[in-house]
Amino acid sequence: MKNQVFHCAFEDILKHLQMIETDCLLVVVDHTVWSLYSERLNLSTLKGKVVHLWKAVDGEKVKNLNEYSACVEFFLGKGIHRKAHLVAIGGGATSDFGGFVASTLLRGISWTVIPTTLLSMVDAAVGGKVGVNTQWGKNLIGAFHSPDKVLVNHQFLASLPIEEQRSGKGEVLKYGLLSKEISNLIEESAPTEKVILECLNYKISIVSEDPYEQNIRKYLNLGHTFGHGIERIYQTSHGEAVVWGMLMILSLFESKETEKALKSLARKLEIGIHAPPWRGKTFPHDEILSFLGKDKKRAMGETVDLVLLKTLGQPSIKNMSIEEISNLMQRKINELKSIQL
Amino acid sequence: MKNQVFHCAFEDILKHLQMIETDCLLVVVDHTVWSLYSERLNLSTLKGKVVHLWKAVDGEKVKNLNEYSACVEFFLGKGIHRKAHLVAIGGGATSDFGGFVASTLLRGISWTVIPTTLLSMVDAAVGGKVGVNTQWGKNLIGAFHSPDKVLVNHQFLASLPIEEQRSGKGEVLKYGLLSKEISNLIEESAPTEKVILECLNYKISIVSEDPYEQNIRKYLNLGHTFGHGIERIYQTSHGEAVVWGMLMILSLFESKETEKALKSLARKLEIGIHAPPWRGKTFPHDEILSFLGKDKKRAMGETVDLVLLKTLGQPSIKNMSIEEISNLMQRKINELKSIQL
Repeated sequence: MKNQVFHCAFEDILKHLQMIETDCLLVVVDHTVWSLYSERLNLSTLKGKVVHLWKAVDGEKVKNLNEYSACVEFFLGKGIHRKAHLVAIGGGATSDFGGFVASTLLRGISWTVIPTTLLSMVDAAVGGKVGVNTQWGKNLIGAFHSPDKVLVNHQFLASLPIEEQRSGKGEVLKYGLLSKEISNLIEESAPTEKVILECLNYKISIVSEDPYEQNIRKYLNLGHTFGHGIERIYQTSHGEAVVWGMLMILSLFESKETEKALKSLARKLEIGIHAPPWRGKTFPHDEILSFLGKDKKRAMGETVDLVLLKTLGQPSIKNMSIEEISNLMQRKINELKSIQL
Repeated sequence: MKNQVFHCAFEDILKHLQMIETDCLLVVVDHTVWSLYSERLNLSTLKGKVVHLWKAVDGEKVKNLNEYSACVEFFLGKGIHRKAHLVAIGGGATSDFGGFVASTLLRGISWTVIPTTLLSMVDAAVGGKVGVNTQWGKNLIGAFHSPDKVLVNHQFLASLPIEEQRSGKGEVLKYGLLSKEISNLIEESAPTEKVILECLNYKISIVSEDPYEQNIRKYLNLGHTFGHGIERIYQTSHGEAVVWGMLMILSLFESKETEKALKSLARKLEIGIHAPPWRGKTFPHDEILSFLGKDKKRAMGETVDLVLLKTLGQPSIKNMSIEEISNLMQRKINELKSIQL
């Protein structure tokens, strides 16, 4: 059984770790998270388990082959066995990294993820995409390796910087557009933990049906096709870029209703962004196109899959050539320029 | 469809490569193999495909994270996409390495293996176990990633050193003991290519039923539990170590009939080994036990799964503690000492 989600407080996390059927836990924890929470996550209270702790360099910096090599050699040097279980504690970068270690150590061991950022709680923690970056781009080395359990404790969010909160809210907004149920929860101001669990469950239902992104898993890329470029060009947070990427798609395909819904959800979530990063500058037509072209997700040939959303909760896929997209962007350049939240 | 086996001559190999549905081939080839066969495998005759060639350091030396990192960075630098297809050409080390690259590049791409040694033709080429070594032991980093196709051309064997031939014959002998059909083929002096294909098909039938070695795939470890230690202690070839490992098991559990069958098959195969490496020395009781203990395949606790073979073609698993094995070895020390082919 993979991808089981549990909502739990700090004490419950320790109970879950205690229950894992292993005598050996390999913990990969974000350095900053550990400095804040090592007392509340007192691993020395676990009975009958040896714990090997690897403190990961903060955030995205850990996602490379040098850190990977150092980490696997560290664990292997402890004489671990195949029933060892890895626990990744941190944001999406830490779980991408820890998951990749778990996927390849002794040809793959089981793992649990404890997400500590809003973005990783709703997105990165489930689905099994794990990996590291190379000089040629992000996530170019990796695997599909789902965690057994995802332990969600929204109390971690208390220490999350505002920029990271905003980034997570961008992904939550995406789920609100993909799912009418999540949209309703946000509109009703449901508690954060409830919204998080709904997002996670939505993602799990999608990825369990289409684990290798052949089909409906592509829906989760809503806003990402243009978002990736925006994130790189303007160095925005991931979630903010996804919001602008979604607004671009809705503008290009005249999805007025969905655009209204997006803006309403953004207000409810207090997302705290208003003008796109190209406001007062030239619209980055060519740069955005160049990121479509370089995207590793692009299949053979010169076409990309765009996720459209004419109606709230009803995404669809449209395969278009980069040339067609370019022409469409040219025709709609005024609408794109005047996007705002 | 995975693990499809084709017996083919050099020209047929090129036809198979031409048929792969991709415009991009990533070739990982053993350096020595390439120096001998690059003309007969003229990849420049392939139509409509870009070929990126990585010449791998010979044999086991390629199986480490430094070579892995260099190889993936090389391919990624070519701007490859997810429909690229990797082709590994060489012995077991080259396919272990190439398969691990394929399993992690862009989160996993499809691959084909062209085994060039007898050992890799009958064993390493199928089953999906891929990986590299670390300072702590062999194959400690890896994955399960089966090739789409295995292209077997026994003409490669013409250039195989005698020691490598002997090593492969040791594994063929193992299959002869596991399967009555293979045993019959060997006894009837069937052509090499026929025996090879039967061994491969036997392995495929086992691993397709039990890909993650929970159950009957363990049968393939016949002779390996002690063999691993013998290989390391005496620096013998893998296949020779497996032969002595099988004879140890048959001696310890008094499988007289199977022992006779083994010796008959060894003569038929002209295996060219006679006395065990401990002849005239102290029997390496403690060292062999120490390798049982360090074996990464050892599950939690202090027990190991031994593959027994009371009757030809009917393997079984016996789980024993290392202490029990030690006691049994002590009781049978004279039989073990006097093993010969």
